[in-house]
Amino acid sequence: LVSRLPDVGTTIFTTMSRLAQECGAINLSQGFPDFTAEDALFERVAHWMRAGLNQYAPMAGVMPLREAIAAKVAALYGAAYDPEQEITVTAGATQALFTAIAALVHAGDEVIVFEPVYDSYVPAIQLQGGVVRRVALRAPDYRPDWAAVRALVSPRTRMIMINTPHNPTGTVWGPADMAELAALTRGTGIVVVSDEVYEHIAFDGVRHESVALHPELAARSVIVSSFGKTYHVTGWKVGYVLAPGELMAEFRKVHQFNVFTVNTPVQLALADYMQDASRHLGLAAFYQAKRDFFRAGLAGTRFELLPCAGTYFQTARYGAIADLADTAFVDWLTREVGVAAIPLSAFFGEGRDERVIRFCFAKREETLEAAFERLHRFC
Amino acid sequence: LVSRLPDVGTTIFTTMSRLAQECGAINLSQGFPDFTAEDALFERVAHWMRAGLNQYAPMAGVMPLREAIAAKVAALYGAAYDPEQEITVTAGATQALFTAIAALVHAGDEVIVFEPVYDSYVPAIQLQGGVVRRVALRAPDYRPDWAAVRALVSPRTRMIMINTPHNPTGTVWGPADMAELAALTRGTGIVVVSDEVYEHIAFDGVRHESVALHPELAARSVIVSSFGKTYHVTGWKVGYVLAPGELMAEFRKVHQFNVFTVNTPVQLALADYMQDASRHLGLAAFYQAKRDFFRAGLAGTRFELLPCAGTYFQTARYGAIADLADTAFVDWLTREVGVAAIPLSAFFGEGRDERVIRFCFAKREETLEAAFERLHRFC
Ligand SMILES: CSCCC(=O)C(=O)O
Ligand SMILES: CSCCC(=O)C(=O)O
Repeated sequence: LVSRLPDVGTTIFTTMSRLAQECGAINLSQGFPDFTAEDALFERVAHWMRAGLNQYAPMAGVMPLREAIAAKVAALYGAAYDPEQEITVTAGATQALFTAIAALVHAGDEVIVFEPVYDSYVPAIQLQGGVVRRVALRAPDYRPDWAAVRALVSPRTRMIMINTPHNPTGTVWGPADMAELAALTRGTGIVVVSDEVYEHIAFDGVRHESVALHPELAARSVIVSSFGKTYHVTGWKVGYVLAPGELMAEFRKVHQFNVFTVNTPVQLALADYMQDASRHLGLAAFYQAKRDFFRAGLAGTRFELLPCAGTYFQTARYGAIADLADTAFVDWLTREVGVAAIPLSAFFGEGRDERVIRFCFAKREETLEAAFERLHRFC
Repeated sequence: LVSRLPDVGTTIFTTMSRLAQECGAINLSQGFPDFTAEDALFERVAHWMRAGLNQYAPMAGVMPLREAIAAKVAALYGAAYDPEQEITVTAGATQALFTAIAALVHAGDEVIVFEPVYDSYVPAIQLQGGVVRRVALRAPDYRPDWAAVRALVSPRTRMIMINTPHNPTGTVWGPADMAELAALTRGTGIVVVSDEVYEHIAFDGVRHESVALHPELAARSVIVSSFGKTYHVTGWKVGYVLAPGELMAEFRKVHQFNVFTVNTPVQLALADYMQDASRHLGLAAFYQAKRDFFRAGLAGTRFELLPCAGTYFQTARYGAIADLADTAFVDWLTREVGVAAIPLSAFFGEGRDERVIRFCFAKREETLEAAFERLHRFC
């Protein structure tokens, strides 16, 4: 049996959540809230189930949800995506990314990614025979070096994958980054895949810089987002893709033979729930308060907190606490301190270890306080 | 933009369901029931949502569901699959098939399929650079010619995909077929992928011949099934895979970066609902009555009904009604008669047209009666 992904193990998020559970550690590793969503959302799912809407949705998603997405994107970014041709509902953002890569990357094509990089991108590219080219983002600010990106672009470059707000570093790109990206890809056959699952979680009054704000760039881009992060239901696995018709046609060719379609009553419920825009517009303030609470809670420990401009993740240097590889440090932290985190090396390809770990602060205050107590005791 | 799937259009099921809706035709095309599932099932979903279990499930599925699947498979087929290592919950059977192919088929590998073949198999193979080898199943009985299969096997054969009970022909394979398949693949590196989504819908007292009944064969097989067909919720998109540990390890490497995991409260609800085995054990009798009702209802028309031993599909020759290609015939049937069906050529690669169409009889009696009325008037 020759593996198609010989270098792949179990995803770090599964590994760490399981270890946290085994050790009874407070789980600040895998990115999900430990609070629940509103009954109003559950009530809509129950409504549509009981109304008997439990058979296949249209392949691209139920029309009310595609229309609600179009309305949101128009309101936030002034972009006009056609629900019929340019919006597709997916079984989460990961499936959207996997499908976009499968649909657009041919064997031998090069794909540029920014490292630290979310752990699904590289295997998804490799599975299609794509060649991964990595641009390093460097602590403490993790900003892209556009000269380095330009140096990597070749006639074989097929795709550039970006992610803002950025998991795991919490960096939020600005208009200048989008201008660089647009200039770099203009007149080429390069497709931009923009992972914007944290689009509603940018802090300190900074606007999330969606590719959708830039029509000329958006015309060669696939934008991916998610409801799980926005509505506190990561386990529901519903996301969506925005792309111009020609790219979307290719996306759907693969999508229809991968998952085909997504849970019907859940889609209808999300369409209802989205009508109240305050639910996503309020998210930045909600998580900014949690970020501030978390950073304040760690003051006085020997963690050096790096900047966090968005997402619900906080990165931290632990060099003043222990001289350990980041994997060894999180192992100790989980087993001995009782707080699970993610080692940043999990987001690097080749053994890069910056002695940085990632905490998820999408947790109730009492959860975070319990973590503070443990971290203050040991760190 | 060079398409990775140049020959692929929109799946026939989406095309026909949309045409049916546009024409106000009775939709006997795409395979889904027009009756609803039980409130007891919906109640369990609502329960787990309200209980706050809305975050990521474990990558392979929630343990209660994997255990319930293991118990069912043990009871029905005497097979022991380990929930930890050998069972994975998927976002429907289509995603399971797509992922199995992506995980196991290398570029240049040959995959044998039986034609008529479900429309997702061939594009999924082609996307991985696999080479499709087709064995023709012939009307009226559509039984496999094992000598023809043997003649196709080569050192490059990596996978054989089977489907019993068979969509679209309603054929149910027997122990002799499994013996042939086992003999053919013994001592080779060939993996069998067995699509058993209609496992609970075999008629006339015939037992579904699961690969799981044959341990020696099952040791090199990936078995795929679905809850959508069994519990009348095709729109929920939950299925599962059984495979020995070594194959499952490869499956999960891809699965975790494709959909990662599946809706948590829905999984928990299905685990509860499965506890009452009468729900799946009663399905054969339920659909056998519908098959008999449907066949009786078409008596007196000039359709020639082919045998139907399983699934919720009935195939029919229409040569006595019109001298048309099957695509033209279903177009006429949908627009003029007001009953949508699927042309069997949609399940063939190269323009094969046997002048046969497929009806879905998973419908309420009044729906079927309305269809009878229209079909008797015109056919
Ligand atoms: C798919 S589980 C991982 C969730 C997540 O996005 C993260 O922890 O980074
Ligand atoms: C994925 S939609 C098709 C449903 C089905 O299995 C069929 O109609 O054959």
